[in-house]
Amino acid sequence: MNDLGIVRRNIDRASPEQVQRLSAFGSATVHEAMGRVGLLKPYMRPVWPGAHVAGTAVTVLLHPGDNWMMHVVAEQIRPGDIVVAAITAECTDGYFGDLLATSFLARGAVGLVIDAGVRDVRDLTAMRFPVWSKAISAKGTIKATLGSVNVPVVCAGAVVNPGDVIVADDDGVVVVPARFAREAADASARREANEADKRAKLAAGVLGLDMYDMREPLAKAGLKYID
Amino acid sequence: MNDLGIVRRNIDRASPEQVQRLSAFGSATVHEAMGRVGLLKPYMRPVWPGAHVAGTAVTVLLHPGDNWMMHVVAEQIRPGDIVVAAITAECTDGYFGDLLATSFLARGAVGLVIDAGVRDVRDLTAMRFPVWSKAISAKGTIKATLGSVNVPVVCAGAVVNPGDVIVADDDGVVVVPARFAREAADASARREANEADKRAKLAAGVLGLDMYDMREPLAKAGLKYID
Amino acid sequence: MNDLGIVRRNIDRASPEQVQRLSAFGSATVHEAMGRVGLLKPYMRPVWPGAHVAGTAVTVLLHPGDNWMMHVVAEQIRPGDIVVAAITAECTDGYFGDLLATSFLARGAVGLVIDAGVRDVRDLTAMRFPVWSKAISAKGTIKATLGSVNVPVVCAGAVVNPGDVIVADDDGVVVVPARFAREAADASARREANEADKRAKLAAGVLGLDMYDMREPLAKAGLKYID
Amino acid sequence: MNDLGIVRRNIDRASPEQVQRLSAFGSATVHEAMGRVGLLKPYMRPVWPGAHVAGTAVTVLLHPGDNWMMHVVAEQIRPGDIVVAAITAECTDGYFGDLLATSFLARGAVGLVIDAGVRDVRDLTAMRFPVWSKAISAKGTIKATLGSVNVPVVCAGAVVNPGDVIVADDDGVVVVPARFAREAADASARREANEADKRAKLAAGVLGLDMYDMREPLAKAGLKYID
Amino acid sequence: MNDLGIVRRNIDRASPEQVQRLSAFGSATVHEAMGRVGLLKPYMRPVWPGAHVAGTAVTVLLHPGDNWMMHVVAEQIRPGDIVVAAITAECTDGYFGDLLATSFLARGAVGLVIDAGVRDVRDLTAMRFPVWSKAISAKGTIKATLGSVNVPVVCAGAVVNPGDVIVADDDGVVVVPARFAREAADASARREANEADKRAKLAAGVLGLDMYDMREPLAKAGLKYID
Amino acid sequence: MNDLGIVRRNIDRASPEQVQRLSAFGSATVHEAMGRVGLLKPYMRPVWPGAHVAGTAVTVLLHPGDNWMMHVVAEQIRPGDIVVAAITAECTDGYFGDLLATSFLARGAVGLVIDAGVRDVRDLTAMRFPVWSKAISAKGTIKATLGSVNVPVVCAGAVVNPGDVIVADDDGVVVVPARFAREAADASARREANEADKRAKLAAGVLGLDMYDMREPLAKAGLKYID
Repeated sequence: MNDLGIVRRNIDRASPEQVQRLSAFGSATVHEAMGRVGLLKPYMRPVWPGAHVAGTAVTVLLHPGDNWMMHVVAEQIRPGDIVVAAITAECTDGYFGDLLATSFLARGAVGLVIDAGVRDVRDLTAMRFPVWSKAISAKGTIKATLGSVNVPVVCAGAVVNPGDVIVADDDGVVVVPARFAREAADASARREANEADKRAKLAAGVLGLDMYDMREPLAKAGLKYID
Repeated sequence: MNDLGIVRRNIDRASPEQVQRLSAFGSATVHEAMGRVGLLKPYMRPVWPGAHVAGTAVTVLLHPGDNWMMHVVAEQIRPGDIVVAAITAECTDGYFGDLLATSFLARGAVGLVIDAGVRDVRDLTAMRFPVWSKAISAKGTIKATLGSVNVPVVCAGAVVNPGDVIVADDDGVVVVPARFAREAADASARREANEADKRAKLAAGVLGLDMYDMREPLAKAGLKYID
Repeated sequence: MNDLGIVRRNIDRASPEQVQRLSAFGSATVHEAMGRVGLLKPYMRPVWPGAHVAGTAVTVLLHPGDNWMMHVVAEQIRPGDIVVAAITAECTDGYFGDLLATSFLARGAVGLVIDAGVRDVRDLTAMRFPVWSKAISAKGTIKATLGSVNVPVVCAGAVVNPGDVIVADDDGVVVVPARFAREAADASARREANEADKRAKLAAGVLGLDMYDMREPLAKAGLKYID
Repeated sequence: MNDLGIVRRNIDRASPEQVQRLSAFGSATVHEAMGRVGLLKPYMRPVWPGAHVAGTAVTVLLHPGDNWMMHVVAEQIRPGDIVVAAITAECTDGYFGDLLATSFLARGAVGLVIDAGVRDVRDLTAMRFPVWSKAISAKGTIKATLGSVNVPVVCAGAVVNPGDVIVADDDGVVVVPARFAREAADASARREANEADKRAKLAAGVLGLDMYDMREPLAKAGLKYID
Repeated sequence: MNDLGIVRRNIDRASPEQVQRLSAFGSATVHEAMGRVGLLKPYMRPVWPGAHVAGTAVTVLLHPGDNWMMHVVAEQIRPGDIVVAAITAECTDGYFGDLLATSFLARGAVGLVIDAGVRDVRDLTAMRFPVWSKAISAKGTIKATLGSVNVPVVCAGAVVNPGDVIVADDDGVVVVPARFAREAADASARREANEADKRAKLAAGVLGLDMYDMREPLAKAGLKYID
Repeated sequence: MNDLGIVRRNIDRASPEQVQRLSAFGSATVHEAMGRVGLLKPYMRPVWPGAHVAGTAVTVLLHPGDNWMMHVVAEQIRPGDIVVAAITAECTDGYFGDLLATSFLARGAVGLVIDAGVRDVRDLTAMRFPVWSKAISAKGTIKATLGSVNVPVVCAGAVVNPGDVIVADDDGVVVVPARFAREAADASARREANEADKRAKLAAGVLGLDMYDMREPLAKAGLKYID
């Protein structure tokens, strides 16, 4: 009736090629390219600025104040994975610090996305291990209750399935369902294709009003200019 | 009955001289100098640290999740302006990114103050385009509903009229009504005049208790020292 | 019936030796070593990143929007102290800026922990004066109502008594009751003693599951692996 | 340079006739009729359910934790007025209780809208004195600092000028600029004119899709039905 | 790549018999019976107290400030359904009022669960139409952008699939996946079976410590009694 | 080094006579009478309106998501006690419902004050068992970690020692240290003594400006009347 107490060992990860392609795009581009969906809530912020990663999700579901399953998920990490941690109720405790980061790094993880708190911020920054979290908190956790690994989770308002692609940067975190990875990469590429051209025009003083042909629809909607 | 669907082209901007003078002061100084008013709510934070600007407000009123009017306001920007964007209801979506920043910069804008979210944080930082916002979010917006440009707006709890002076730094954002620009600059200058002297005294170990003659009023109010 | 209007001049500070020892540990380590207590709420954030201090608390209780007592507490600061400021109701106003920081520094303070707002962020950063606060706000305060100095306070959810040890870094702020300073330093030292060893093992790919012997209790709790 | 320390005795109130007309409509109707503007933020909630009032605004600007001006505004109340109280910074203290309510009632006030806290909830409920507030709090306030009475204020995100019409009910609080009172009442009346007809159709099972002719625009926008 | 612009007409609803059985239990009981999962975030509150319903979910995904799809979902309602409305970004606008409630009731809906705001609170209360929402707001919405109907949604942190069972009361809202409806009803029934007996014992003064045999495990965990 | 895992059986309760006296006053009166201290944060709200109780505190410290100690504290309740529950980190889970309420009632408890969530709201209302909480949530808790009973706690920002007096009503919750119970009751009585007189005057139209002799200090502070 629920997925508690389960660790799924074999998951279908999105193809490395598509992850690689998606890693070239920012979270905003990918989110737009998918039709403006897949974004985690904006309270998810990077622990240190400048990180930009794409990876395949291994998921973990934990209970408030209990990080036992973080050790269980560590074993399921493969190189290129991003751990996506969801909690069964709201919690800001510090589930993750420098020791777990060392372990995750050793397993090949390229990041952590957690709908709770983390600690050892200075170490995480020094290690350049990318983390997106809801809070920073030195509050410790216990190891008493089973959660699950590699089940579908809701993390910061978005469904993440094991193997999905996560793209995260300073703007936030977006999840791309594994089956749409290629399509999302294609759409992102198309979206960026003429950005350089647009940027050049705008830099030269061309207005979006003209570049996007907005004057007519604005007038039709009733926009009035007064002096 | 409302100001929706209007773009005011001619506005009275505060004098460049007073803006220039006000740019020498921090937001806290100007806010104090005006009698402790004019401050936007403290949830307005700079997207990157260290920016300190003063400029004349061009205002834009937008709807939740709709950034159409950002393109309309771009045309009304004159060199030295700061765009002040208000939303008709609370929203954290990303109304503004690197393309609009490119356009605003090309028009001579010196900053953006927006009671909502922005994205392309890394680009904004690299461009050194100063932005104060309520949130950072990759969430995209649509272009469907008319708002207005250069009407009075309430942005983060403060009334901003087109042409008012905005002073913003790491402490926050303050609005100076255009008609008070000179007076506010004068009062700010007076306030700072003896700050160096005070700072030197305090650095030398003189107590505020003595420097400000507080001991007597404190005793009168009933303060008791015990050992 | 209350402690308002009182300044206690003589307080028992934790021994400098123990403060010195505790300064070697992060807030998370000390909090864990004490049995996972003593942490201020995680909304308390450093004004600039990278500060890590330990000091003895001098406390001040203030009213919303009134920083009069900040000048009173300044006189009670001795070298090595950290000022801990609590407010009688929630407030984000800017109680503290560069002038008070200059004064506190001159008195030998090593930091400020305040359950309200501060301003002059750029100056505080330049001065490297460490501050942990709930908010940043240019909003000024008045000087009208008596609070108290060196009485027990509740700051961000934690009781702080004058003379207690405060340890603060990028992870947060923890308070160590003065009478437990030695014990907390001992426990922190024990906790860190084998961290290097653990870190090396984890870096080498050993799993926490094995290093902490978790497999059996997890199985006993019912954890199931599926393929 | 600011409006602090001022009491304006003579204000132009919206005509009683229009206030009377507007009192027949809910806040949602009036807000829609004005073009979807004028609404105070939705955190403004009635202290007791079921109140529905319209009145002319007398405004008061107060400081955090200081209710001195509530006594000053009392004198400016005329029968049919609603007091609109704004604070210069965020505060949840209890500015208003049964004694002030007794005084306001005696002056003819028909309600209070305050962007802060109130207390004596049980008495206010028993007196049936309608209050919309941001918080309920027993926290007392001081009487130390001047604010102003009958100046324009920003209350919960909306500009309120003295004499404007306030319409408030269980859905929230809306402000109608005095000069638009008639127009807003007319538009509200038009809006409600065919509501009974619409309600009857919908109750009979007619779909909004058909009643509002939405099927074609939805199809044009690309809506697809699948089985 | 996303589900926007889709209306699924045929969905598999949980069996009426199981919905009927589940309607006998409170949300807390069902949530516990499922293994402590399925609960929507606790910010979801009933608009009026005392409602307790169970029904099958028809889902709708909307954009911030846009309630167009509420009319589309109305057509898909069958008697016994509860509409579950999710928004693509955080929003408190009033998506739903008395007209839509009239329409939903006419279609046989037994409630609405919406991760946004609603209005016409007094009418909804008078109609006894049960609504759980995140906010109450008179703020109107537009009709401009396509969302979807009967796709999986994340509502207030929980995944809801069309046809799932919703159980809601004064404690909150819980979702039971359709395929687990019988199992959840069975487990809920088992859970309640001996509650009357327990309640009688506790009312007679028996302690939970004894009734649940907690003294030994507490002692083993190290609990110490002191005088 | 901490108080975890301890149950103190013998505590000094405030005298029943003073509790009885204090029960005659509202939380606002008692809070004011003590000098405007002792109030719990205003997010603490009654689960059902109208309750007004005074009692002696038995305290319990719990961990996030773990209500084991609620059963331990039950045994320490004596008639007239109010249980005051604090959590070591922020949590909204439902720690308390109808079964525990039955047990607490059987032991003679007159209320619960908890800085977390509760459930079975409808039952608590029907039983008329008064509860003040931070949240309502059906989320269940585990029984895995030791906390303590009858140690000093910080609950919603206020220190509560076992045996202190709690006064709670619709305005909030105030704590009176046991040693000040008589003094607080005396001061509350004095405060209320002339309230009836004041209320009569205000009801007769006398202004607070005159009754409290405020006109002169206001003028001295610079208040200006304009027409």
